[in-house]
Amino acid sequence: MGVSENAVDRLTEAIMEKKNPGIVGIDPEWSRIPSCFKSGVSAAEDVGRWACDVIDAVADVVPAVKPQMAFFEVFGAEGVHAHQQAVRYAHKRGLLVIDDSKRGDIGNTARAYAEAHLAKSGPIDADFMTISPFLGSDSMQPFLDAAQRYGKGLFILVKTSNPGSVEISEARNAQGERISDWLAHFVHASGRGCMGACGYSSVGAVVGATFPQEAAHLRKLMPDSFFLVPGFGAQGGTADDVTACFNADGLGAVVNSSRGVLYHHEQTPGFDGTKTVYLDVVRAQAKDMQQKLLHALRKKSSAMLY
Amino acid sequence: MGVSENAVDRLTEAIMEKKNPGIVGIDPEWSRIPSCFKSGVSAAEDVGRWACDVIDAVADVVPAVKPQMAFFEVFGAEGVHAHQQAVRYAHKRGLLVIDDSKRGDIGNTARAYAEAHLAKSGPIDADFMTISPFLGSDSMQPFLDAAQRYGKGLFILVKTSNPGSVEISEARNAQGERISDWLAHFVHASGRGCMGACGYSSVGAVVGATFPQEAAHLRKLMPDSFFLVPGFGAQGGTADDVTACFNADGLGAVVNSSRGVLYHHEQTPGFDGTKTVYLDVVRAQAKDMQQKLLHALRKKSSAMLY
Repeated sequence: MGVSENAVDRLTEAIMEKKNPGIVGIDPEWSRIPSCFKSGVSAAEDVGRWACDVIDAVADVVPAVKPQMAFFEVFGAEGVHAHQQAVRYAHKRGLLVIDDSKRGDIGNTARAYAEAHLAKSGPIDADFMTISPFLGSDSMQPFLDAAQRYGKGLFILVKTSNPGSVEISEARNAQGERISDWLAHFVHASGRGCMGACGYSSVGAVVGATFPQEAAHLRKLMPDSFFLVPGFGAQGGTADDVTACFNADGLGAVVNSSRGVLYHHEQTPGFDGTKTVYLDVVRAQAKDMQQKLLHALRKKSSAMLY
Repeated sequence: MGVSENAVDRLTEAIMEKKNPGIVGIDPEWSRIPSCFKSGVSAAEDVGRWACDVIDAVADVVPAVKPQMAFFEVFGAEGVHAHQQAVRYAHKRGLLVIDDSKRGDIGNTARAYAEAHLAKSGPIDADFMTISPFLGSDSMQPFLDAAQRYGKGLFILVKTSNPGSVEISEARNAQGERISDWLAHFVHASGRGCMGACGYSSVGAVVGATFPQEAAHLRKLMPDSFFLVPGFGAQGGTADDVTACFNADGLGAVVNSSRGVLYHHEQTPGFDGTKTVYLDVVRAQAKDMQQKLLHALRKKSSAMLY
């Protein structure tokens, strides 16, 4: 991994080095974590250790991991401690961290969230965080400022993978623009101030894998922005679906799988309940996603940079 | 405070007992907390003690407090611990807790957030939490389910107090409805399943104090819902502005002040830097808000229930 001052440069370097735009979500759903990880003492500590083991298993395969804050927050302060531990460990293993927390608020409150998640001396110090745009462009400014200040990046929710996402994103504003298009323009314009040497900006968009035509349209509106693409695998998006989120250079998107990687052992015949086999399955699933993505991307473009 | 099984009944009982629809936000902005609260050892622990002292100062004045998650999260796991401590202490002092965290996500992730903030055996166990509707109605269902299951309530963002809030809330969906109206209908319909004995539902709306005409309109669309009204005082909303958020019974809204109560000492002549005087100012400001609200409400309606 490079040590660029700009988050998007670190991300493109990592993707090209690993030859992989696929990332793994760290979603510790307690009931699905194999019992071999459960000490019976502290669930939050178990989750912290499980997360570090998962990170070890995928560290040489993926460019980044995406810890999902909710699944740590449910364990309270100890879970938040485990989250911080996992982020630090991912960095130690040379991985970028996309902190999926979808925060959104106004003024000083937004500033506090941005400091909490992005500040270099802060408790999390993630490379990127996801934010929710509901409160409007003034509510996003403190996050943009913090990203700029700390050489970090954002993924702004534009079009998520769930059916209900259309209810707000398809509404039209006073200028007749769909909210998702307005957000795409906002993402594109906000990225101008933080372009990386790689030709992309550090202000990205969350664009679900389950609406491929929409993704192709949004790709045109945000040519220089990275997409964070959820919904691959367990949520129904295929590798061919997600190619619409990429540019011909094979850059411009990272595709996340959480459940499809973390909990594939549930459908693995002969899973023996050991950590070793569990982590082998995790690693194999991360590699399987990489192969599927590379195959689909190479089929579509001969101009791939990796 | 009552011990009703339904959050909105607990809230109306507390408002009537205290004769006060004004609540205090617990927003620990480190740079504004007086130095007499700073031990030089652990900022997060200082914040926890400061929050408990503030709660003591207002416990017999207000029906509820509204801790703002961001200002605790910025201190990492220790800050989240201080938040949990403050919530527990508020409950011990007989206050309701509105957990202002504006969470929003889909499926299992939304469920994890709802469990984290509302579950009775969870780390926070708040009475109400605020949620963001950006991802659509399916994303809100897990929060509604949890509220129902645990006798808790929600405040869904409908129209916030900042200028940029219009960008999404004024957009129109395929049915020609403004997003804020669509959300108001959603809040109203969702409340049907959790009506309290008081005649209100446990599904409320965040409606900013800075748009009084809009508030009057939304009041009509959500006759049985409580409004959580930010923007009083420091953000420019007056007591007369916020009366539009109330019904003639003096119920249907809680009005929050954070900075105007917590940091009024900055403009108090002769503030001597002691905890005693600081907490006297906090208490006096909470009482001042109560008087202003009661005066404005009684001027408007003779049918007040308290």
